[in-house]
This record gives sequence, C-alpha cells and structure tokens, in this order.
Amino acid sequence: MARGTIAGQIAWSIMGTRMKLYDEHMPAPNPRKVRIFLAEKGIEVPRERVAMMKREHKAPEFLKKNSLGQVPVLELDDGTHISESVAICRYLEALHPTPALFGRDAREMAMVEMWMRRAEFRLWAPMGQVWINDDPRTAIVNPNQFPEYGARNRKVVAHAMKWLDGELADGRPWLAGQSYSMADIVLLCGIDFAKFVNMDMPEEATHLRAWHARVSARPSAAA
Amino acid sequence: MARGTIAGQIAWSIMGTRMKLYDEHMPAPNPRKVRIFLAEKGIEVPRERVAMMKREHKAPEFLKKNSLGQVPVLELDDGTHISESVAICRYLEALHPTPALFGRDAREMAMVEMWMRRAEFRLWAPMGQVWINDDPRTAIVNPNQFPEYGARNRKVVAHAMKWLDGELADGRPWLAGQSYSMADIVLLCGIDFAKFVNMDMPEEATHLRAWHARVSARPSAAA
Repeated sequence: MARGTIAGQIAWSIMGTRMKLYDEHMPAPNPRKVRIFLAEKGIEVPRERVAMMKREHKAPEFLKKNSLGQVPVLELDDGTHISESVAICRYLEALHPTPALFGRDAREMAMVEMWMRRAEFRLWAPMGQVWINDDPRTAIVNPNQFPEYGARNRKVVAHAMKWLDGELADGRPWLAGQSYSMADIVLLCGIDFAKFVNMDMPEEATHLRAWHARVSARPSAAA
Repeated sequence: MARGTIAGQIAWSIMGTRMKLYDEHMPAPNPRKVRIFLAEKGIEVPRERVAMMKREHKAPEFLKKNSLGQVPVLELDDGTHISESVAICRYLEALHPTPALFGRDAREMAMVEMWMRRAEFRLWAPMGQVWINDDPRTAIVNPNQFPEYGARNRKVVAHAMKWLDGELADGRPWLAGQSYSMADIVLLCGIDFAKFVNMDMPEEATHLRAWHARVSARPSAAA
C-alpha cells in the first residue's frame, strides 16, 4: 500500500512505470472502486491520502492535478494525471490484463460497460441527487438544497434496486454475467453508499441481497 | 443504412455476425452517438426505427429487448441485446478496431474514458436535470417538475461549458488529445442537445466554440 512495501515495489517494477494514487478513505465511493479493483488484480500502487474533510481536494496544489477537485487521481511519471475512477481502472487493466475485469471479448466488454452504466445512471445518479439535496452532511457545502427533490429521488433509488433485483432473478452469479467484473465493483460501491445515505436494499429484493452478500464476501470488498 | 444496401451487406459480412440496431432519429442524443460512431468507422448496420413519440420504446415487445425502455439497442444474432450507447460502441470497436475511437494504448484509453465521463457527469447530468425539470416538452411525462431546480442546473451547465472552454485553451484539437475520439462524440451530442434545451455555449467560450466547429465540420456530425 505504502510506497515502501515490498508488494508496492514489485507492482511498480512489473508495471514498468512509476505512478502514485491520490486517494481518500471510506465512505467516499469513488476512491473505493479503485481500491477494490487493485485488490482484485492483486497489485499495489503507492498512495497518498487527500483529506477531503480538510478540503485538501479543493486546494490549489491539488487542482493542478484535477481541475475538478475530485479524488481519486492517478499520477504517472510523465506528469499525466488520470481522474475518474473508471478511467484509472481502465488504465490499470491495459497494463495488467489478468484477471480481466472489463471483459475478455467483444460481447463481455459490452456487457460490462452496459451494466456499469446501468448501475451509474439508474442507482448512482438518483443517489447523488439524494446526497446533495436531502442529506444534512452536505448542507454545509450546498446550503440551497431541494429536500423535496431529494426525497423523490429516494423513491427512484428504491425503484432501481427493485429493477436490479428482477434482473438478477435469472440466477447469474455476477451483474454482467458469469464473471465478476468492474460492473460488480461499481454496483457494490453504489449500494453501500446508498446505505450510508439511509437507503438500504428493500427486504424483498432477495436476488439483489444475495448478489450483495456474494460480492461483499470477497476479500477485495474490505479494500 | 437499410439492410438491403450494398454497404450494409458488406459491413454485415466483414463483421461476420448478424446484428440490427434499434434506433431513433434526432434530437435524441444517445442514438445519435452511435450513428456518428458508425459514420466515423465507415460501417453500416441494419437499423429499425423505434418511434419514441409514439412511445414504441415503452411497448412490451421492446421492453423484452431493454427492460429500461430506452434506445438505442443493438441486437446480435445470438439473441443478446446490448443497450447503452457507449456499450454498443465498445462492442463495435472490438469488432472493428480501426480507426480507434476509444484510444490506441493504455494512456489514450484512459484519457478517452476520462473525458467521456467528464462530459457526461459535468454537462450531460445537469443538462438532464434541466430537461426533466424545466422543459415544457417533458412536462407531459413528468408532471411533477421542479422548475426552480431545473433553472439552477442551467447555471451548472453554463459553468461546465466555461470549464470545458478553459480546458481546451491549451490548443489541442480534440477533447481527449491529438486524436478524434468517442469523447468528442459524447461532448458534441451533449452540446447540441443542450442547445435544443435552450442552453447554447457562452459567447466568450471561444475555445469550446472552435472545437465545436471542428467536430461539427466532420461529415459524421450529420449522421
């Protein structure tokens, strides 16, 4: 994890390029996606914490790395900065293709992309509306909340979870099919963050709950 | 375009697999992304129109293809249905890699993914909030609009356009760098749909406007 660890150095030399990951700890769901991805790949990258509670991600020095002031950011030794967690993961997938987490052939790649996006547009997007409009913890940075709109989006999230439950009713083990993939990582981080914003999976969503238990049982989920 | 055309038949046999694209015409921005992508690749796929104004995308027969009732959908001959425009494009990129529109190496792939997502999260997302909450054309299907929230998101869209302008001020020709890519397609369809929802690029956004003129001058933009 730290640059000084042996595993970190091995990953460093395997990859043949120096890099550093600017990161934040739980509950931020986007940095977590990258940590789970790294754990599934069995690779480590030197990390530097950006303390979001101290607003370090909005400091001028960090804005040079990502003008949007968001973590995570992967810094390459040529000075390139990659932001957006899925873009970071795609970069690492290209350097380190096994196990494939974005699909192994055209059809699998399409299914992973489709399910990743469905998780983002159906669950993450309304969840984000709840988070910024109907959660007291964001009221400080967003004083003009629309709580009523946030509340309506809670229903959209619940509807999305029921829809996902129906889609998983065919008994497949993972969201995009027979292989664990980036789509599972995206959905897991979404479901867990939704719980953090007081939106748990409906009791009757037994297929979704079984999937969540399977994904959460993998050691990577603790990353 | 139609299955019967010679070009359509060539594409069909080059690809070695039968497929059909369920599509809708302008101004729907997501089907347009796929049409531009196909035009840039120089390939054609048999298409069947889904008349959204007639709500054909919500009909039971179509919901079997995409339970979310959205176009576009690509149907493969094994019965697989791929929805989400970017997932469809990734599938076609894997079958038909040249010219590469998702990047040629790890770094380019990451940049395309990053800029595609920045265009989606920064521009498309607030634009969607305007569209569903502050546009009379969606009031029929969404009678409980939050016009004030939509109006605020108009400012978020304007802010995003100014931010994009600043990012393009380095003089690079295309959004993700030196090569035209899927990121340009995503941003173009976003900017043009924003205009359809009465949010044009700010006059002072000269770099963004120059980029928009460059992208719009390509024959694919008419697709």
